[in-house]
Amino acid sequence: MANWLEIDKNAKTWVKEASQMIKQSFSKTLTIETKSNANDLVTNIDKRTEQFFINKINDHYPNHRIVGEEGFGDSLSNLDGIVWIIDPIDGTMNFIHQQRNFAISIGIYEDGVGQIGLIYDVVHDELYHSIKGNGVFLNDLSLPRLEDVNVSEAIIGMNATWVTENKRINPSLLAPLVKNARGIRSYGSAAIEMAYIASGRLDAYISLRLAPWDIAAGIILIEELGGIATTLKGQPLDLLAENSLFIARPGLHEEIIQKYLNNGDW
Amino acid sequence: MANWLEIDKNAKTWVKEASQMIKQSFSKTLTIETKSNANDLVTNIDKRTEQFFINKINDHYPNHRIVGEEGFGDSLSNLDGIVWIIDPIDGTMNFIHQQRNFAISIGIYEDGVGQIGLIYDVVHDELYHSIKGNGVFLNDLSLPRLEDVNVSEAIIGMNATWVTENKRINPSLLAPLVKNARGIRSYGSAAIEMAYIASGRLDAYISLRLAPWDIAAGIILIEELGGIATTLKGQPLDLLAENSLFIARPGLHEEIIQKYLNNGDW
Repeated sequence: MANWLEIDKNAKTWVKEASQMIKQSFSKTLTIETKSNANDLVTNIDKRTEQFFINKINDHYPNHRIVGEEGFGDSLSNLDGIVWIIDPIDGTMNFIHQQRNFAISIGIYEDGVGQIGLIYDVVHDELYHSIKGNGVFLNDLSLPRLEDVNVSEAIIGMNATWVTENKRINPSLLAPLVKNARGIRSYGSAAIEMAYIASGRLDAYISLRLAPWDIAAGIILIEELGGIATTLKGQPLDLLAENSLFIARPGLHEEIIQKYLNNGDW
Repeated sequence: MANWLEIDKNAKTWVKEASQMIKQSFSKTLTIETKSNANDLVTNIDKRTEQFFINKINDHYPNHRIVGEEGFGDSLSNLDGIVWIIDPIDGTMNFIHQQRNFAISIGIYEDGVGQIGLIYDVVHDELYHSIKGNGVFLNDLSLPRLEDVNVSEAIIGMNATWVTENKRINPSLLAPLVKNARGIRSYGSAAIEMAYIASGRLDAYISLRLAPWDIAAGIILIEELGGIATTLKGQPLDLLAENSLFIARPGLHEEIIQKYLNNGDW
């Protein structure tokens, strides 16, 4: 049986080591490439950081499998056994333009069930971490369970893209939510926005296209605190595919699905 | 003649003293009131911080006039003489919900000309400061002048509100900008978003309704670095009234005015 405490301890050590390498890169010139489109950026640091994690995991846990954003891991058709789902730098655009507001995101699953979630906001030195059943911590601070709020008192993480013409959703569907929410914010990193829900800085987060490595750790943190993570249609997330993501405090999730998203012309 | 070095030194001392009071308030219960609408919040800490600055300024500079968000200062019909324009907590909603991403903002003008700009991101301990003609600093780091970028490589600060139905602008006007920019972010504090342009974390910032105290310090920082600050129609800002705000790197400002905003049905 897996020793989750030991795995957690190792993962945290490696996250802190990787963050040192990332911070050292700030003084050097980045090699920036574009991926699927001009705004989907990747740097040599993203790649090197993923390779660092893969080497560590392979050395210590040769039976574990790994999925990483940069593709150096395994190509999976199922989530059997223990699987690490890694984004070495979530928010690469922020990393390049801002040298902040990016995170290392690691979710560790066993037979598809989240066991360990780690999101590390490198520059602000905020490590969100959870072992299933043991609560969620921000550094040493135990985070309270997520209670309901109404839309009118909620701050929602959502990019303006989703209320303008786009390929994925009718923009008029989310526009009333923008109008009725207390506030809308956009930080440009799914991992950080999910971590902000865990710490109560946001109440919900919406995105129309995310990969498994963007959300694997965040789901574990949010569900451990009683929050709800689904697609925008309220369906379960698939960690082997791209998904839309709608994640929120418990009652707020229901309110938004019923009053806004169920009206939708999808 | 005003001793700007001494005024700057005092202002910075008071900003740091005020920030200590603000941080101490995190462990206490806030008294929250709403102002003009349900989402325009003010706390006892906003009020107390403004009163703190007013007392200090009145003691040291009885001839200076003061405009503050919470209304404890003077009511001005002109900008003659030396005028302090103060927002004790810019981003009060963030202050309440997040205990971060808010700033103290102070712009000091002489006969309408910006002489000293201070924006302090309290929780992240980032003080942006400038004395006219002496450059802009982030803590001890001298910030470089703002160079041009294209829209396609620009990260723009803008709330989703302005691309959904609203009272101030036809949402279809800014929608193409959301589509063509590299990225859109929204942090919920005009002072912080203007400071982020100064430090290169954002390239432009757009808002449709801001008060003088939201923008007085940021304008000084951005203009000192060669950036352009106008209304969304490209007209000069009026520090005695509410304005729309469009602030950007120099060539980017021209590109957005010409290609996006001049097409507008206002």
